[in-house]
Amino acid sequence: MPGPVGETLTSRELDGLDAHWRAANYLAAGQIYLMANPLLREPLRPAHIKPRLLGHWGTSPGLNLVHTHLNRVVKARGRPTICVWGPGHGGPAVLANSWLEGSYSETYPSVGRDTAGMEALFRQFSFPGGVPSHVAPETPGSLHEGGELGYSLAHAYGAALDNPALLVACVIGDGEAETGPLAASWHGNKFLDPVHDGAVLPILHLNGYKIANPTLLARLPDDELDHLLRGYGHDPLYVTGDDPRTVHTAMAHALDTALDRVAEIQDAARGKGGSERARWPVIVLRTPKGWTGPALVDGLPVEGTWRAHQVPLPEVRENPEHLRQLESWLRSYRPEDLFAADGSPVEQVLECVPAGSLRLGSAPYSNGGLLTRDLPVPPPERYAVPVESPGSGTHEPTRVLGGMLEDLMRATADRRDFRVVGPDETASNRLQDIYRASGKAWQSSALPTDEHLDRHGRVMEILSEHVCQGWLEGYLLTGRHGLFSCYEAFAHIVDSMVNQHIKWLKVSAALPWRRPVPSLNYLLTSHVWRQDHNGFSHQDPGFVDHILNKSPNVVRVYLPPDTNTLLSVAEHVLKSREYVNVVVAGKQPCFDWLSMAEARAHCARGLGIWSWAGTEDSCRAPDVVLACAGDVPTQEVLAAASLLRRHLPTLAVRVVNVVDMTRLLPRAAHPHGMNELEFNAVFPADTPVIFAYHGYPWLVHRLAYRRAFHPHLHVRGYKEMGTTTTPFDMVVRNDLDRFRLVMDVIDRVPGLAVTAAGVRQSMADIREHHHRWIREHGSDLPEVVGWKWPD
Amino acid sequence: MPGPVGETLTSRELDGLDAHWRAANYLAAGQIYLMANPLLREPLRPAHIKPRLLGHWGTSPGLNLVHTHLNRVVKARGRPTICVWGPGHGGPAVLANSWLEGSYSETYPSVGRDTAGMEALFRQFSFPGGVPSHVAPETPGSLHEGGELGYSLAHAYGAALDNPALLVACVIGDGEAETGPLAASWHGNKFLDPVHDGAVLPILHLNGYKIANPTLLARLPDDELDHLLRGYGHDPLYVTGDDPRTVHTAMAHALDTALDRVAEIQDAARGKGGSERARWPVIVLRTPKGWTGPALVDGLPVEGTWRAHQVPLPEVRENPEHLRQLESWLRSYRPEDLFAADGSPVEQVLECVPAGSLRLGSAPYSNGGLLTRDLPVPPPERYAVPVESPGSGTHEPTRVLGGMLEDLMRATADRRDFRVVGPDETASNRLQDIYRASGKAWQSSALPTDEHLDRHGRVMEILSEHVCQGWLEGYLLTGRHGLFSCYEAFAHIVDSMVNQHIKWLKVSAALPWRRPVPSLNYLLTSHVWRQDHNGFSHQDPGFVDHILNKSPNVVRVYLPPDTNTLLSVAEHVLKSREYVNVVVAGKQPCFDWLSMAEARAHCARGLGIWSWAGTEDSCRAPDVVLACAGDVPTQEVLAAASLLRRHLPTLAVRVVNVVDMTRLLPRAAHPHGMNELEFNAVFPADTPVIFAYHGYPWLVHRLAYRRAFHPHLHVRGYKEMGTTTTPFDMVVRNDLDRFRLVMDVIDRVPGLAVTAAGVRQSMADIREHHHRWIREHGSDLPEVVGWKWPD
Repeated sequence: MPGPVGETLTSRELDGLDAHWRAANYLAAGQIYLMANPLLREPLRPAHIKPRLLGHWGTSPGLNLVHTHLNRVVKARGRPTICVWGPGHGGPAVLANSWLEGSYSETYPSVGRDTAGMEALFRQFSFPGGVPSHVAPETPGSLHEGGELGYSLAHAYGAALDNPALLVACVIGDGEAETGPLAASWHGNKFLDPVHDGAVLPILHLNGYKIANPTLLARLPDDELDHLLRGYGHDPLYVTGDDPRTVHTAMAHALDTALDRVAEIQDAARGKGGSERARWPVIVLRTPKGWTGPALVDGLPVEGTWRAHQVPLPEVRENPEHLRQLESWLRSYRPEDLFAADGSPVEQVLECVPAGSLRLGSAPYSNGGLLTRDLPVPPPERYAVPVESPGSGTHEPTRVLGGMLEDLMRATADRRDFRVVGPDETASNRLQDIYRASGKAWQSSALPTDEHLDRHGRVMEILSEHVCQGWLEGYLLTGRHGLFSCYEAFAHIVDSMVNQHIKWLKVSAALPWRRPVPSLNYLLTSHVWRQDHNGFSHQDPGFVDHILNKSPNVVRVYLPPDTNTLLSVAEHVLKSREYVNVVVAGKQPCFDWLSMAEARAHCARGLGIWSWAGTEDSCRAPDVVLACAGDVPTQEVLAAASLLRRHLPTLAVRVVNVVDMTRLLPRAAHPHGMNELEFNAVFPADTPVIFAYHGYPWLVHRLAYRRAFHPHLHVRGYKEMGTTTTPFDMVVRNDLDRFRLVMDVIDRVPGLAVTAAGVRQSMADIREHHHRWIREHGSDLPEVVGWKWPD
Repeated sequence: MPGPVGETLTSRELDGLDAHWRAANYLAAGQIYLMANPLLREPLRPAHIKPRLLGHWGTSPGLNLVHTHLNRVVKARGRPTICVWGPGHGGPAVLANSWLEGSYSETYPSVGRDTAGMEALFRQFSFPGGVPSHVAPETPGSLHEGGELGYSLAHAYGAALDNPALLVACVIGDGEAETGPLAASWHGNKFLDPVHDGAVLPILHLNGYKIANPTLLARLPDDELDHLLRGYGHDPLYVTGDDPRTVHTAMAHALDTALDRVAEIQDAARGKGGSERARWPVIVLRTPKGWTGPALVDGLPVEGTWRAHQVPLPEVRENPEHLRQLESWLRSYRPEDLFAADGSPVEQVLECVPAGSLRLGSAPYSNGGLLTRDLPVPPPERYAVPVESPGSGTHEPTRVLGGMLEDLMRATADRRDFRVVGPDETASNRLQDIYRASGKAWQSSALPTDEHLDRHGRVMEILSEHVCQGWLEGYLLTGRHGLFSCYEAFAHIVDSMVNQHIKWLKVSAALPWRRPVPSLNYLLTSHVWRQDHNGFSHQDPGFVDHILNKSPNVVRVYLPPDTNTLLSVAEHVLKSREYVNVVVAGKQPCFDWLSMAEARAHCARGLGIWSWAGTEDSCRAPDVVLACAGDVPTQEVLAAASLLRRHLPTLAVRVVNVVDMTRLLPRAAHPHGMNELEFNAVFPADTPVIFAYHGYPWLVHRLAYRRAFHPHLHVRGYKEMGTTTTPFDMVVRNDLDRFRLVMDVIDRVPGLAVTAAGVRQSMADIREHHHRWIREHGSDLPEVVGWKWPD
């Protein structure tokens, strides 16, 4: 089903496009092979060849074709455009284009647009101390690595949101198209607001093969592929071929048709507020893998097959026939016609290239920090809950936060640079006050029973954590702000995606030309301790463990213990840049411990002694430290402190609450790590510490193993003893309950085992009583729920 | 586009189906609400109501409808059938059906099919000490929890593979359908062999709403939905309505049509080897959410809306109007017509129910351990590489393993109970010898350039780790065996899926009626140290960390250091049951350290002293222990030991290699944990230990923090210093190289800092020299590559 071939191009234009494409192909191949003799001014010799041949040729000619043709339409239409290169392992192609258009040399003056620069461009590619083989933060014009496949289209949608002038082209490889996240991302078109958002133009590149297999979509019968794309809500345009001039003509025509259609959709929506969901165009580009490369190598077909995926001629240094084939392949692009004597591209090559920031490698959108404005986060004090005395009242922390987010949504109503994403859980997570300021993005039909749907809404809900994450990453990387609210257990769904984002931020931070982008903020709620409705499958606090394995300059983890601390943490993370912040907070009623002023001070320190909760006095070192992190552990520790005060009044107990987990790390391991003196002042080296932690207990050991107190540290936390049960039974099953903590204290403070044996037994008895009670009544013993200060 | 309504049913049949459906609906609602008075033999009072109302009503009537109608066709056709319930949070529905058909009471005799049993069924649901609110391992007939959405269809395909007689129905909720893994799973039909595999019948249930939002697919225009399903390669059948009798008729007709079509496809393929890819049927069932439940509650619409998702009447104990509505709702099913005086279902209700193991709750396929046969793993000795002396030769471990898997594939050619899955990486991971015994499953068209495609192949390759994982889980849970080979970094893509599988195995192990199923085996290769082509995006060794957070009775982690140890580990994991085994092994040439006999003994112990590599003797305790886990760290430790032997010949060095990481854990924390005596014999309490670990170094601390040696433990590993560079530069960047290890020894053995200062400086010098060399030459210094025993 090839697309119609029109008369879009003059033959001069066509020659120019082909020259640009050949130049880019030449430069892509050159990067994989050459470390000298970049323009083949002398016959190719083994010494010109890199010792290790690394890189991916197969996808590069297709990416070069897309880039060449995007150049043309951007120049012709003057419309700001970026491209997300899904087959990002085709790094040589994007680097080649960036160098051709001059963006590369402007970003990296040591790699000039001349012969020496071309040699540097070639040599540095996949070379120690050089540049990665993939499109990466180092690549001008990119906001998407593409190493781990699946996220290009979600990134593209995220970039287009609230950028009404922007066109985001997105090349989707047919390998990537098999992944789940990509398959789900097609439905992004049901959320794209043609009024306030830019356009996304997916370009599905069917080059037929993955590493070693044909691709599923390339082998669909034509009608089935057409059904699929229409089923995704697109109007497909097809460009198919292996004759360059035919393909140039068809591609130019398809791009013009697509962009005309985009303009129609946007004009209609912006002019008269069209109410039909738009059928956006998609281009299907079907060209051979490794197109224009060696057809046969060692008697086996390479061009058009999976063998073209990486390095088509693998033994160029050792095998004279391979060397000869490489030279003939490189010369087939006629470099002498493409580059001037000084190595710079000739005029014909550059004819299609737009100028200045319209160049894909120079668009500020792909260096989003250039466009970021400070977020007008309202002061938490405005939403603070009153705290007459610690624990005298309760609030639902996320519900109160919802009010703050509502005002933030309102404050950004005109700027439109803040979004909240989540997998159908915004209301379940009790943030629904947000809807008073912005509804949920929705372009499909609506029924009277629907609530808060809004064609122009900035709350994004789709039942796909992958798509939520991808949207938000794209939105942040183009310089805007956002929050991802998610059930705690299911944050693991995006473990691998956040890995890639953290890597991106880590590398970007070392590039002076990349400006800091707003942080990726997670609000993990509906957490492990309160999965009353769902049980074991929804209980997993390990996302924090995963995050804390990653680059310490990027990752931050906060466990605010109550409402006011959540507000303080939220203000901090929403204003921050360059981080991945994980905030774990409850949505269930939670005791208010700290006033707003106290909360601010406590969160600024990251951890602190709650002297009002303990029984130590200034004359005496504590006998035991009860530490806690997380809302439920904090409640249990304070209840345990209360029990100790009643039953063992002479025991000197210190209560420490930890909000910022990375404070426990050595300073050398994390910028937030406390120094030894500070740390030992809070946790004395020889005092037993009973630490009640929200998640897996060994995480605390992993953070604190270098600390002096470590031999005396005993951690309680979640140990996979999950099920559908009552809230208090959950803490009992995992030995995190107040009674167990008191028993731990008695077991670990020297001398107490004997003198407090009776207290210990009464703690054991009430646990047992509770166990029988809930099995009979189905609910917790009234007297163990909550927390009460002793009379 | 409703399906045609035929004359499939007699009116007696229709009455029977409706009675069964009403009975199931009654029982589903009863489970959510009642703890007494199960048959409403007296007026409903607050005391009959559970104190905590937990569960999901919204999806239950739809699941009940599907179950009722599956009963009919299973009975009529006598075809073994299971159903994967994607909306598994509709636990009440599946439990209700299982109880009605008698499977539940046979599995749990304490819950009889009578009044007392019904009360027990109701009371235990989502009750402390009772059963989970979701379909779970505790649920007879299930192999899929459904708590974390996205995996139903991949599980269904996995279950159908190599079960030619089996029909796997799969209900896909329209919420779940938005997830990435589900969206990708539709393409499973391109891999299903109509000759050797069973059939999968997807039933897309569009009830219109998620927790709080409309669903995307329910709001597609009819033609777009039809395009989408045809694009996925299916022939859709539509069942739409809210009038029960109309829907019953349409559903019966659709199921008959679908199963006739399945039979046609299979007969054609099995009879004459049809070569066209089949267009399998799919049923689209569009019925209201919370169908037959309260239409309005407190003046707001509930039936047919998102408000029906969980508990439609939330205040039954407190609010007399809610109580009245509940009673009227329950009585609307006419329980007096459905259940006899003793509480058992009347004959009419049971008329559609098949007998014995044809009942969905009694199918052995969903308790796969019943069907498992021991896997004929060939003895590793057959593939062992000769080792004249340690380190004298090299092999690519995974390539040698490929030979063993080839023979295993051959040995199971007739049994067809072993499969290998992977995301297009089987050959990249150097396992391609497998193809000599079985090709790659592929039902689409093939070209002459394709290799190893096979309509009947048992190697499964799709570029989706999610789908690979889902297929394999479904295959294992139905009692067969398999291996997932994956790039190490991208195993994180399935973090959350493997969580759920581990939870399933943990809970199943505690249920005597569930028989052990074969282990889920990962082969992680193309690992962090050898991502020469791809760089930073492909470097992440954290899957092991993730796995080790989970239930210790399920998880196992192995890092074989060479080829023979990989063979030994592979034999062990392939024969094992009930575990999730993670094996990390290299594909690059690796020194052979141990003979097969030594490898077997070493792997059986899990860790051991390599006395031939050290310099301690029996008269003297070691001055330092060099420990290692993983192929690259082992090479570096042995090279360091060699350097120490040359430069510091009087130092007593012990070399310890760890294969099984959980040996480091305390025995109380993992069944493989060593006891203190054993452990301290290997790692003396006061001796410095330099531990070179394959992954994040703090993992070793987290495992070993309780051990006596811990204050003297210093771990080197991957610390996110990744990029595209040479193999040796990677270890240098992360301070894991031999020279750094020697420096670590000098820094940590008391007294050496002064006497060995010269050696230390020469180590630092060669690191610096290497650094300059690779930046100039692009490859490693020849003399630092590999390993050489000192003369």
